[in-house]
Amino acid sequence: MISKELSADLELKWQRMREAMLKVNADGCLLTVDVNLYYTTGQIFSGYFYLPVQGNPLFFVKRPSGIKGELVSYIRKPEQIPDIFAEKGMKMPEKLLLEADELTYSDYIRLQQLFNPKETGNATALMRTVRMIKTPWEIEQFRISAKQHAATYAKIPSCFRPGMTDLEFQFEIENKMRQHGSIGVFRAFGPNMDIHMGSILAGDNAEAPSPFDFALGGKGMSPSCPLGANGSVLKEGMAVMVDMAGNYTAYLTDMTRVFAVGKLSELAYKAHQVSLEIQHEVEITAKPGVACSALYNIAAGIAGKEGLSAYFMGTKQQAKFVGHGIGIQINELPVLTPRSKELLEENMTFALEPKFVIPGTGAVGIENSFLVTSTGIEKLTLFEEEIIHLL
Amino acid sequence: MISKELSADLELKWQRMREAMLKVNADGCLLTVDVNLYYTTGQIFSGYFYLPVQGNPLFFVKRPSGIKGELVSYIRKPEQIPDIFAEKGMKMPEKLLLEADELTYSDYIRLQQLFNPKETGNATALMRTVRMIKTPWEIEQFRISAKQHAATYAKIPSCFRPGMTDLEFQFEIENKMRQHGSIGVFRAFGPNMDIHMGSILAGDNAEAPSPFDFALGGKGMSPSCPLGANGSVLKEGMAVMVDMAGNYTAYLTDMTRVFAVGKLSELAYKAHQVSLEIQHEVEITAKPGVACSALYNIAAGIAGKEGLSAYFMGTKQQAKFVGHGIGIQINELPVLTPRSKELLEENMTFALEPKFVIPGTGAVGIENSFLVTSTGIEKLTLFEEEIIHLL
Repeated sequence: MISKELSADLELKWQRMREAMLKVNADGCLLTVDVNLYYTTGQIFSGYFYLPVQGNPLFFVKRPSGIKGELVSYIRKPEQIPDIFAEKGMKMPEKLLLEADELTYSDYIRLQQLFNPKETGNATALMRTVRMIKTPWEIEQFRISAKQHAATYAKIPSCFRPGMTDLEFQFEIENKMRQHGSIGVFRAFGPNMDIHMGSILAGDNAEAPSPFDFALGGKGMSPSCPLGANGSVLKEGMAVMVDMAGNYTAYLTDMTRVFAVGKLSELAYKAHQVSLEIQHEVEITAKPGVACSALYNIAAGIAGKEGLSAYFMGTKQQAKFVGHGIGIQINELPVLTPRSKELLEENMTFALEPKFVIPGTGAVGIENSFLVTSTGIEKLTLFEEEIIHLL
Repeated sequence: MISKELSADLELKWQRMREAMLKVNADGCLLTVDVNLYYTTGQIFSGYFYLPVQGNPLFFVKRPSGIKGELVSYIRKPEQIPDIFAEKGMKMPEKLLLEADELTYSDYIRLQQLFNPKETGNATALMRTVRMIKTPWEIEQFRISAKQHAATYAKIPSCFRPGMTDLEFQFEIENKMRQHGSIGVFRAFGPNMDIHMGSILAGDNAEAPSPFDFALGGKGMSPSCPLGANGSVLKEGMAVMVDMAGNYTAYLTDMTRVFAVGKLSELAYKAHQVSLEIQHEVEITAKPGVACSALYNIAAGIAGKEGLSAYFMGTKQQAKFVGHGIGIQINELPVLTPRSKELLEENMTFALEPKFVIPGTGAVGIENSFLVTSTGIEKLTLFEEEIIHLL
């Protein structure tokens, strides 16, 4: 079922994990969270993936039936794992890594008790660091997502009809996304990123603060999902920011474009150009070794110099980042914040999203996904970047 | 922002929680998971809801800005909570309940250390039990969802075009769902229920085992989301089972109908009638005091008597339940399994889904959402129940 190319990629990922495990003196890593299973096995199953610091990994599968291979053992419950270790003559780990920032407390305690290691470490921290540097297969997945993402955005103007609401506009775009292969499911790290297929912000709804950790907010269509479009009628003079998910493979590209209903305010056009200028400055600065904090400071600095700080990344509530790593989850490492400690490395992927919210008009700005190369960064999401007029 | 009706409903929920807390000798309950915040406050925010066993609750809000009220304190981090308790002259709890089956290990430990109670108990278990019995406001939300759910299903035949794939059919239904007010986001308890807006199973894809805890499987469109439609072309003789989410409010109704492309096999028509018979027997048996296990046994017994056990709830992989509680999450308590300990109580809501998978044809059967009344059960999802022919 798994291609030769993916199989070699999995070996590469396991090798990187082993190297990271050595650095924290761990001799075993047990994973069960969907994104980590997908990363390490190329599929999602109900069960566990165990990687020893030396030797082959083990797959402990509860469901589905029918997964074959030497590495696979079927189990009903994790308490059967120690017996399988014994049968295979494998040593139980002395320092075991568990997904401390993803497993529930109850599941963590259960696994810790049945493995009973001398020491337990944090597999979430390790996996987020390993997953930060993408493999060749992963980069190829991003290229597929980016291409479909751009192809979908090219259809956006055809979704517009005068008099429609932001939600009606979004429903049509969602339909185009699905026709272009969107998987629909949107994965994020942490509990605070609930969304359905992306966000559209029209006019002053862009100012509404949201509880979530996205760059911008929006009231949403229900108090049970307070983000994005809220049913505003799209009217002359409104900026309509489209930030819909790029989940055309398991690897998410992130991309925002601004559409205008008629003519926008002068300040909105100016702020949009400043976003493009920020992107340009980041593009000529970013390369391996450059601090992520420096990229944030470039963005905030230009916004300040242009007198736009009060509109930068929101008004009533302002996000304190201008970009973030992307991968199987939309918010991977690194994060482009003033307090970020990371330096760019080759084969990182990140989204850069300098945005402004202009009261009376709406949100403007740009977002693209980038790959860090050996000498700079490469833009993956290629599509018209000026404000696109719908009327 | 919150209506008088909802406000009274929140008081009722808090009172039920206090009664449940008394039974486990807890004097405080701290909630932070989105579904529990929505349940207890009528909105989702980033922060914490604290209910003492006596007196008013406290809202500790990180985001969004702008939530007002006497009960609200803004915080940057949970470590500020003890000082706010002190300012308000409130006692820190001796036995604190935390969401042990939902919080990550790291978050749980952090909260446990800063509260430092003599004893810690499981708020997840308490909340799942309290949430099992619905309030009048919640029941009203179900009625709204059920009505829109049925109205959407009435549009399904218009989504069909000969020669289309199951996915193309699904995309059109998703669009109809959104036009009828679907919020899109689908909430489930536990990590093992990933899905996008629902499941459509055409022909033999209904036999494909899935890792997830849904009644039936399907290969899905990507190994990163292995469930449901897989791109099968809809062909003469295929049963097409539509089980799309009823998220027209935060309260999910669950409803399945079967559509046929041309004429199906005799066995498929027979099995569908047996599903309706199972539903009828459950409807005349179910009332407060009846065991959930007894309802499962009715279903499995009829399937066995009709010689259909090998097709009941799947073929290669068979689900061991025939229904489940519904609410803000699709898999609430009670569960209709042979091992269930629960008895039906008034104002429970559950979905009943007797289904059969017929090799060579696909999945048939029925699913509806029910409310337990004082004397029986009431069907909420009212729509044609026979197989609906598309050609």
